[in-house]
Amino acid sequence: MGATTAVELPPEIRDDPCALRRLIRSGGYTGRTGALAMGYVQANLVILPVADAEDFLRYCQRNPKPCPLLAVTEPGDPHLPQLAADLDLRSDLPSYRLWRDGELVDTVGDIARWWRDDLVGFALGCSYSFEEALITGGLHLRHIERGMGPARYTSSIATVPAGKFAGPMVVTMRPFQPADAIRAIQITSRFPSVHGAPVHIGMPHLIGIDDLAAQCESPYLPIEDDELPLFWACGVTPQAALQAARPAFCITHTPAHMLVTDIKNASLAVF
Amino acid sequence: MGATTAVELPPEIRDDPCALRRLIRSGGYTGRTGALAMGYVQANLVILPVADAEDFLRYCQRNPKPCPLLAVTEPGDPHLPQLAADLDLRSDLPSYRLWRDGELVDTVGDIARWWRDDLVGFALGCSYSFEEALITGGLHLRHIERGMGPARYTSSIATVPAGKFAGPMVVTMRPFQPADAIRAIQITSRFPSVHGAPVHIGMPHLIGIDDLAAQCESPYLPIEDDELPLFWACGVTPQAALQAARPAFCITHTPAHMLVTDIKNASLAVF
Repeated sequence: MGATTAVELPPEIRDDPCALRRLIRSGGYTGRTGALAMGYVQANLVILPVADAEDFLRYCQRNPKPCPLLAVTEPGDPHLPQLAADLDLRSDLPSYRLWRDGELVDTVGDIARWWRDDLVGFALGCSYSFEEALITGGLHLRHIERGMGPARYTSSIATVPAGKFAGPMVVTMRPFQPADAIRAIQITSRFPSVHGAPVHIGMPHLIGIDDLAAQCESPYLPIEDDELPLFWACGVTPQAALQAARPAFCITHTPAHMLVTDIKNASLAVF
Repeated sequence: MGATTAVELPPEIRDDPCALRRLIRSGGYTGRTGALAMGYVQANLVILPVADAEDFLRYCQRNPKPCPLLAVTEPGDPHLPQLAADLDLRSDLPSYRLWRDGELVDTVGDIARWWRDDLVGFALGCSYSFEEALITGGLHLRHIERGMGPARYTSSIATVPAGKFAGPMVVTMRPFQPADAIRAIQITSRFPSVHGAPVHIGMPHLIGIDDLAAQCESPYLPIEDDELPLFWACGVTPQAALQAARPAFCITHTPAHMLVTDIKNASLAVF
């Protein structure tokens, strides 16, 4: 108890998604989840009142690459037994963001006091899962080796609207030498529930990105002369659509503070 | 009988690989096989004396992308029951090439008089199969729409030698817009026994091709500004290795005059 950084967590908690959730639930860990419970699916969280949730569900269905829906709750039920038996969306993430009318109003460690009978929770797949598959497949991800996130861009690709939700697809870019690029497409194609195959390769100006460095919305690592940029749909897409839609009430995870599930990344492979 | 062009063949022969082989066997058709028995695997043929065949078998094993071996005969046996019950390698191709010491010495319609007890036949997968899968998958192949073959190049990628067989990988190039390029990689990855996924994408100078037009060894169709070049290993690779190795005796198919099998292209998909 009282551990505050990932490196201080004992292995029996760090490597066990259920033990980790219980520690988080008790308030004993409020940090990032990226290096924890390796091998297990981590998910983005969106919580909306049922009326907006109906639109958002259709938005996810129509845009499966940026919004790969792993599981959705019954209205008012904070559990997701599809992802873990012992899981409570009100307490099991290390940090939550509260939004009112599209504005961030608070960042909290527990949402029990804001939970309502009309709230619906969405767990969306995240790139951690396919990045693990890429690394397991022998590919190098330079941004991870440097302790950074991937390069992120707002592309000119429009998502398919649903109700109040719409907007451009946000993408992440990872550079690879050509043969590795082909391998990266093969590997991520196996994981449609965590963004799947890239949406673009090699000609960023065709998706509205004329300058990889200048337009990057995250810390940028230069691409090498013998590398092609590959672009994957990013889970920031629905976050941006939410902010633009300005729902009266919404809860999300805090970036990098994810829902840790009991599902193995490898179990998501479709072939 | 006596039909000499593909368009003159009645559908019951044109669409039936077994009937087509029987017509070819009788001498009734000596033309190209490209538009015939659509949906069925067509194969490149290499026939070598057993001593060279041992090297060539290892060469295919070490270079499965340019030399995807569908089936190999027992020494002296001209049949390949894995590919068709009623199939005789001595007569069932419309045209054969005879080679002595690496030189083309004759082109014939039947090789019964040259068959020997020490000959081994190799049937190698060909790009017709994955091109059908690409078209079925909704992609456009401009060279086919124009009645041409794909652009072909000798790359700087070396094959793995085996005995006397070695040499550069010959590749074919097909251009696609980026999203279609990703789809083309996915589709052809399903067909490892007919060249499989591309070996390169997007940066031809990295594989020894500095000028797509000037270095093209087949009629060239210009690539568009919004297209990426994708490069697949080509069945001309083993033909070039054979010519360079100069075996004392060898028989191959005549280009575009292939072995038609009873195997459906779709049955080769691995997932």
